[in-house]
Amino acid sequence: MSTQKTWRVAVLPGDGIGPEVVAQATRALEALAARDDELAIECTTFEWPSHAWHERHGESAPADYLDQLAAFDAILLGALGDPGPTSDPDRYLLSDAVSLAPLLEIRKGFDQWCCERPCRPLPGANQYLADPRAADIDMLVIRENSEGEYVNQGGRLAVGTPHEIATQVALFTHRATERIIRHAFEQARVRAHHRASDGRAREFGREARASQVCLVTKRNAQRYWGDMYTEIFARVAADYPDVDTHHELVDAACMKFVSHPWMFDVVVASNLHGDILTDLAAVLNGGMGVSPSSNINASDRSRPPMFEPTHGSAPDIAGRNLAGPAAMLLTTAMMLDWMGVEDPAAARAAERLRTAVSADLAAHGGEARATDAIGDAVIGAL
Amino acid sequence: MSTQKTWRVAVLPGDGIGPEVVAQATRALEALAARDDELAIECTTFEWPSHAWHERHGESAPADYLDQLAAFDAILLGALGDPGPTSDPDRYLLSDAVSLAPLLEIRKGFDQWCCERPCRPLPGANQYLADPRAADIDMLVIRENSEGEYVNQGGRLAVGTPHEIATQVALFTHRATERIIRHAFEQARVRAHHRASDGRAREFGREARASQVCLVTKRNAQRYWGDMYTEIFARVAADYPDVDTHHELVDAACMKFVSHPWMFDVVVASNLHGDILTDLAAVLNGGMGVSPSSNINASDRSRPPMFEPTHGSAPDIAGRNLAGPAAMLLTTAMMLDWMGVEDPAAARAAERLRTAVSADLAAHGGEARATDAIGDAVIGAL
Ligand SMILES: CC(C)[C@H](C(=O)O)[C@@H](O)C(=O)O
Ligand SMILES: CC(C)[C@H](C(=O)O)[C@@H](O)C(=O)O
Repeated sequence: MSTQKTWRVAVLPGDGIGPEVVAQATRALEALAARDDELAIECTTFEWPSHAWHERHGESAPADYLDQLAAFDAILLGALGDPGPTSDPDRYLLSDAVSLAPLLEIRKGFDQWCCERPCRPLPGANQYLADPRAADIDMLVIRENSEGEYVNQGGRLAVGTPHEIATQVALFTHRATERIIRHAFEQARVRAHHRASDGRAREFGREARASQVCLVTKRNAQRYWGDMYTEIFARVAADYPDVDTHHELVDAACMKFVSHPWMFDVVVASNLHGDILTDLAAVLNGGMGVSPSSNINASDRSRPPMFEPTHGSAPDIAGRNLAGPAAMLLTTAMMLDWMGVEDPAAARAAERLRTAVSADLAAHGGEARATDAIGDAVIGAL
Repeated sequence: MSTQKTWRVAVLPGDGIGPEVVAQATRALEALAARDDELAIECTTFEWPSHAWHERHGESAPADYLDQLAAFDAILLGALGDPGPTSDPDRYLLSDAVSLAPLLEIRKGFDQWCCERPCRPLPGANQYLADPRAADIDMLVIRENSEGEYVNQGGRLAVGTPHEIATQVALFTHRATERIIRHAFEQARVRAHHRASDGRAREFGREARASQVCLVTKRNAQRYWGDMYTEIFARVAADYPDVDTHHELVDAACMKFVSHPWMFDVVVASNLHGDILTDLAAVLNGGMGVSPSSNINASDRSRPPMFEPTHGSAPDIAGRNLAGPAAMLLTTAMMLDWMGVEDPAAARAAERLRTAVSADLAAHGGEARATDAIGDAVIGAL
């Protein structure tokens, strides 16, 4: 008898193009399980959270939705956010706020404190930078995902008057800072190890170390958290003498992401800075259409992680079989990677899926093709 | 007898490459005054603020330095920041903090609430983006320069322990928000007017308006100030029915600055978001070497504005006659523009200087040349 684990995945297609791209992901998971007896994945699809659910029930998801999700091993999400029937920008922002809320609630609810967005352009993907060295970009941006600038504390005084004042408070704890920085150093080691075995070794700093972690802050203008991050970074770094360290101020980091991004290895940043840097990393990767993303609790595997592409719900092309599913499929491969830490069959499946998506992209790069046609091609190749 | 105004300029060369590039700027101002009887500019150079002054006197500048500067019409600054004798990154950040402080003090001291960094790549400048439409980029990023995320309020509790918490408070007032947004709309009109007279008219939005202002916030994760900014933006926009409006979230804005920056006209953002976006705009412009910047009190011309290139002090190449003076010269042209609002001779000089720098850049683009050789060429052409 096999002791094989069945992975239970909560599939949340969401809004806009979400359902279309998620459909290709679940087909791919079925195909991967069909060709490998040792892989067992059970997908359960939910209609929430979504704008449609909100229209029907007055809220984006049932009150107990976090409890329902807690029963799963992992969450696979398409995209959230729907402007409703109008494309008026104010209405868009408004319903954005309504229907995006579950994204932040899920991240907080399961303490998915680590958001990772790898950046290594695949051949065939758009290349926005002119310098040919952009093909060598290979970095991992790690974003603190649980606190900082996004605790959304503060308030407004004298609203709507000429005397109005708004405050926005950012909160940073040692606990969350230490774990994200330590995770960055661990990932730097793992990456150096993989590069060494792939014959792609790199060298960083004057001592030619095999990996590097770059800390991003704005400590020259925001001292309190900037100093705390810098001090904790220095203490953690002492445990990793094999990893080179580097600091950048966020403005300079964004500039260098455009002028010479191939210099970076692992980059670790606060919630807001990481949000910005991961979006820039997505462009460097070839754009939203090919950029996967994960939100995980890297210290407790019993709390379900959430995998979602970097792209949004793209309401302008929704329902028209036009959305590229590559980002969603690569996101699914990240989920399989996460499973693969315990389950060799999942690790194999991740590799297969990534290879199939890469091959399709290399063959068809910029061509305009239907969502399901791309899905067919990738799944055919699995 | 002439009623000609003599402009009194406080020249602050600062640290690193600052003195070298500033030397070319003062030479250029002399040459411009020499060929135009109606232009009168009197430069007074100060050794402070600087790292060298700090080493000698234990502080970056004399205690009354803001009072001394208040007597001038404008401030022309080279660059601040010096790592001292070591290139250890922590030491760098440390002395960064010491010697950059006057930058923020001068901005606050004279309520230079508006930071402008125009972005319109000159032929011959580096082009970091692959898309040829990047040559069409023509935008103005306007940064709120007096409050917001840079008030540096907050604190640290249980410093250095596992229980440490840091808070960082951002403060936004109606007064500062309204004036920066209104300024953005005014500048949008001015730009549309210039484009119309140059035969470079553009169209924005479904109603094909001649200009656009894009507001950047992160209101889906930072509601208090995000909502206040959005509401004030809507109220001010009502006074400018001829200007198209647009919102972006900061992460999406950064991504679009790389993927299709030619879509933007005027962009207005908070202090931190503006810091990041103006640095990205500098890259789009061809990099730090060609990106000018201004800090002005746009409501009170009696408070001296400060003009400084976007680049830093580049300690690694300081004192070696290697730094490109183009950014400093274009910054000097921005100072002349500001004078030009009252003084037609200064307006002419701005135009001459910009034309000479552009011509030099177009002729010698990527070549490695000495600081003073570029200065000679530009000044020769004036
Ligand atoms: C939708 C929004 C709240 C979210 C964030 O800022 O975290 C998004 O931008 C992202 O990066 O996943
Ligand atoms: C040096 C620093 C405080 C400054 C800022 O953030 O304002 C700089 O980055 C700039 O943009 O002029």
